[in-house]
Amino acid sequence: MAKKIVNAFYAQSGGVTAVINASAAGLIESAREHGVRIVAGHNGITGALNEELIDTSQESPSVIKMLAQTPGGIFGSCRYKLKNLTDTREEYERLFKIFAAHEIRYFFYNGGGDSQDTTHKIAEISKTLGYPLVCVGIPKTIDNDLPFTDCCPGFGSAAKYLATSVREIDYDLNSMSATSTKVFVLEVMGRHTGWLAAATGIAREFASDAPHIILFPEIPFDEEAFLNKVTESVRKHKRCFIVASEGIRTRDGTFLSDIGCLDAFGHTQLGGVAPMLAKLIKNRLHFKYHWAVADYLQRSARHLASKVDLEQAYAVGKAALLFALEGQHDVMASINRISDLPYRWEIVSVPLAEVANVEKHLPREYISPDGFHITPSCRAYLAPLISGEVPPTFKNGLPEFARLKKIFIPKRVLAD
Amino acid sequence: MAKKIVNAFYAQSGGVTAVINASAAGLIESAREHGVRIVAGHNGITGALNEELIDTSQESPSVIKMLAQTPGGIFGSCRYKLKNLTDTREEYERLFKIFAAHEIRYFFYNGGGDSQDTTHKIAEISKTLGYPLVCVGIPKTIDNDLPFTDCCPGFGSAAKYLATSVREIDYDLNSMSATSTKVFVLEVMGRHTGWLAAATGIAREFASDAPHIILFPEIPFDEEAFLNKVTESVRKHKRCFIVASEGIRTRDGTFLSDIGCLDAFGHTQLGGVAPMLAKLIKNRLHFKYHWAVADYLQRSARHLASKVDLEQAYAVGKAALLFALEGQHDVMASINRISDLPYRWEIVSVPLAEVANVEKHLPREYISPDGFHITPSCRAYLAPLISGEVPPTFKNGLPEFARLKKIFIPKRVLAD
Repeated sequence: MAKKIVNAFYAQSGGVTAVINASAAGLIESAREHGVRIVAGHNGITGALNEELIDTSQESPSVIKMLAQTPGGIFGSCRYKLKNLTDTREEYERLFKIFAAHEIRYFFYNGGGDSQDTTHKIAEISKTLGYPLVCVGIPKTIDNDLPFTDCCPGFGSAAKYLATSVREIDYDLNSMSATSTKVFVLEVMGRHTGWLAAATGIAREFASDAPHIILFPEIPFDEEAFLNKVTESVRKHKRCFIVASEGIRTRDGTFLSDIGCLDAFGHTQLGGVAPMLAKLIKNRLHFKYHWAVADYLQRSARHLASKVDLEQAYAVGKAALLFALEGQHDVMASINRISDLPYRWEIVSVPLAEVANVEKHLPREYISPDGFHITPSCRAYLAPLISGEVPPTFKNGLPEFARLKKIFIPKRVLAD
Repeated sequence: MAKKIVNAFYAQSGGVTAVINASAAGLIESAREHGVRIVAGHNGITGALNEELIDTSQESPSVIKMLAQTPGGIFGSCRYKLKNLTDTREEYERLFKIFAAHEIRYFFYNGGGDSQDTTHKIAEISKTLGYPLVCVGIPKTIDNDLPFTDCCPGFGSAAKYLATSVREIDYDLNSMSATSTKVFVLEVMGRHTGWLAAATGIAREFASDAPHIILFPEIPFDEEAFLNKVTESVRKHKRCFIVASEGIRTRDGTFLSDIGCLDAFGHTQLGGVAPMLAKLIKNRLHFKYHWAVADYLQRSARHLASKVDLEQAYAVGKAALLFALEGQHDVMASINRISDLPYRWEIVSVPLAEVANVEKHLPREYISPDGFHITPSCRAYLAPLISGEVPPTFKNGLPEFARLKKIFIPKRVLAD
């Protein structure tokens, strides 16, 4: 008699990345080898709550392989945080009823801090309810702000894209600066932490290279010090390339992006930080400027993914399956750095209780004393993470991405 | 006795591109084969006026080859338009005095419409003054708005980058749309023409693919029609991806980006079009949005250059030299499309008098009847231009770009 197939639930959560689907591929391919069927939640945990479950066993091996070159969250993600058991008992009861109906024995959740918290809650509640479920978190976030893990899958690719873009744009800016644009502001993601902004620092090879100024959320914005630095850069380098985290704040904690300006109706316009800084420079220093806001460009740029990042994204997915099979419950697959040079790493498991709801900030020793650049130790940390190129296949000039059949499993609980 | 070296002036002008240096490489490599020394103007034509001339013969063959993978304008560009002879006779006299002092016999100017106009003026004045100079324009502009030439070097690479980014971001947006971001606005360059916006249209393979709406400068912005289209897209596709040209205008000709909003000092804030549209959608339709402004990202993204574009950029540089040696005066190297499928092209010369100051708009038959997308004929035109990948070499995870010695020729006229 054939061995009975074991079912596992997997879902993607929060802001997606260029390589989160590589984690899905690592998990699914590993699961297939071990007789586990991955049932994917449609749009994160809401797929479980709504009993919208995608049967990944219906997808061909080639399309699963293709996931590793496909950005975004292929099964749909969500921004949805489960409350505490006491607040929403009903929600948890429904969740476990649906898991029971589909004989789900493993739970994998692929996301950032909030998602690891969700995984931890489900792990605890499964114990309370006596439901046999092994829960393993799979890390993902371009923000790189999860604790314990040396880095977060998704970060290295966004970092590589941004550092490359800074180097490229600096060649452009340098061409224009004699008679035209002298200041360029690039806004990058990072509402609370400056990891992505810091990553652009590695684009600098010589002292005159961009970025000339990096603004971190960890360092309160000081208008005068900033403007002095801009003036100095234009004097020394004939141009000034500024990288600004979206989350930079004044000393009293106000987000610069919240200052904005009033629209025709008197509403505050939540502009970006980049146009705001550009305008400040124009008003005070009269330099001609250009600005860009990278937004989703930086987190979906699969065409320039980091090879190391892609390998790690795949590895955490694969390891999560193995940890689950070993019965490791309430843990997260985590990247452990063994050495910088040569760069060596391994996947280990860490207890979710210690990961959930902790935000890892850029350490002060990674930021230069004046607060406007990165230090050599930061560079040593970042350098291996952007290493190697793994372009997707192209067809007719454009990248080819996976298109899944997405066959839903018939509902057993919520069917009417 | 060795054949006497002939000197040629070359300069880069206007907004630069990911492949303008490939034109420089084509010209310089071809010049070396024919015993011509290229003297490059530092910062465009101002390099000639200031007698800041870079001796390219001092650069190694390997660094010249490297130019083809280096974005920006390596010799420096400028935004500077020569006036008519009657207005600034002195300026022209200085220019020709400097050319004479350095025995310049050929003049190559690499730029867009304004630069071709400059080349044409210099060509005419050289005849008036009886100075023996052969003038050849080399086309370049991501805007793709030069007449006669089938396309402009620089456009195909920006187009490929934008179309790729739209496809990538759409996978991201699609993941988020169930519980979060439903609308994404990407602002692209194109103050007067919609070629770059149109190019993103090729990212659509199936009817539900992004972009769902393209806003062209050629079509007056109709707020109600636009909002209806956004609503329809969210209903049908659960999301709406909008690509907006920076130059979109209302029916009375006002740029949307000029409407902006007032800052704390009562000044008009020239924001981008993207945040303005995002805010409009938020106010009227209440959808959660994200927006990006690509700005220089799109014109310096050498890492994703189009192979066809790179080859054409190189070819116009090489052909310009050959046209000059043939004595073709007052012409521009131009790309002639021989066939769509298979895509075949050649370089021909066209009289500068017919090129200068003419702006090629997106033809109405390239825009769908409702004004929000491209037609099959537009797609047939665009498809070959983004074809093929030619990534730069990477080192330590980042692209390697040329660093020139830039040895200036001692001044003979303006020396003091």
